[in-house]
Amino acid sequence: MLDDKALDTIFRQARTQNAFSGTVSDAQLRALYDLMKWGPTTMNTQPGRIVFLRSKEAKERLRPALSPGNLDKTMAAPVTAIIAYDLMFYENLPRVFPFRPDAIKGFQGEEKKAGNQVVAFRNGSLQGAYFIIAARALGLDTGPMSGFDNAKVDAAFFPDGRWKSNFLCNLGTGDPSKIFARSPRLAFDEACRIE
Amino acid sequence: MLDDKALDTIFRQARTQNAFSGTVSDAQLRALYDLMKWGPTTMNTQPGRIVFLRSKEAKERLRPALSPGNLDKTMAAPVTAIIAYDLMFYENLPRVFPFRPDAIKGFQGEEKKAGNQVVAFRNGSLQGAYFIIAARALGLDTGPMSGFDNAKVDAAFFPDGRWKSNFLCNLGTGDPSKIFARSPRLAFDEACRIE
Repeated sequence: MLDDKALDTIFRQARTQNAFSGTVSDAQLRALYDLMKWGPTTMNTQPGRIVFLRSKEAKERLRPALSPGNLDKTMAAPVTAIIAYDLMFYENLPRVFPFRPDAIKGFQGEEKKAGNQVVAFRNGSLQGAYFIIAARALGLDTGPMSGFDNAKVDAAFFPDGRWKSNFLCNLGTGDPSKIFARSPRLAFDEACRIE
Repeated sequence: MLDDKALDTIFRQARTQNAFSGTVSDAQLRALYDLMKWGPTTMNTQPGRIVFLRSKEAKERLRPALSPGNLDKTMAAPVTAIIAYDLMFYENLPRVFPFRPDAIKGFQGEEKKAGNQVVAFRNGSLQGAYFIIAARALGLDTGPMSGFDNAKVDAAFFPDGRWKSNFLCNLGTGDPSKIFARSPRLAFDEACRIE
């Protein structure tokens, strides 16, 4: 069991940040992936993909897709990650799920495409959450966002259509003076039941 | 930053378990929700819902929906959680996102239903991942599963159609002798790029 300080760092005191400073190195981005990658996915499919935008040129390609409320903070963040998923994730199955060599057959064929989208979106989203928690665990602040034009991001960064954008996440050192008071969470009895 | 032991507990050494023993109390289930609830969601929408199945009667209602490979281990687990999402999540927005009192309008109306499904599935899945990490952080082992019939679960547990099942997750104390060797993860350069 984690101690109180660790629980605070990844959940209880962590906040979505709006203003970021500092720098984020390649080594930090690799450490972040090397931690989040261990989170479980269906049949170890691992459809999650990440494009880390750090250069001015890459950020400028993202600019037209951002909603007004997310524009300035994202352009100023040290790194903005595009959390995406790979619709052809199953090509890796013979290597990443060796216990069932024929598992790939369950995903091949035109009639499997709708189901594959569900698997990719569900598990790519799980991996997006692992990304957020792993970043916090490694001392980075995060600013996840859904307020952007997915189609514009996909056209600019994934023109072949194989990867699809899910959400964006700014990374860096957050400025706690630039956030609102914390919003309330649903009570246990609103969100859960025990049967 | 978390120490190595904590990183091992939530990511590096944690494994999806197949055989569970022990008991899981109401207090543990409430502590789990009270931790995972802090994870971020789009506009604090919190569409994730959880039904904890612990009684024999509740498990029997789940039985017909389970795939053969997940049947025995799930019937034997101390608790099986149905990780679900609420398609009417936006009804809570005036209370949980008080900064924009009119935010609810962006989700109301027949023409918003397809978009609402995407928001609920994305964020409900993020919350499903928070659930897995929070359980591990509190000393529980997890066994998340997609191998079941979602429509059967929805008919048995959510007959009004408002909540939808996402995935299942067994909870308890895992038996490390009942798992396979760990499957490989994709390398950084397969899953990520830096621009």
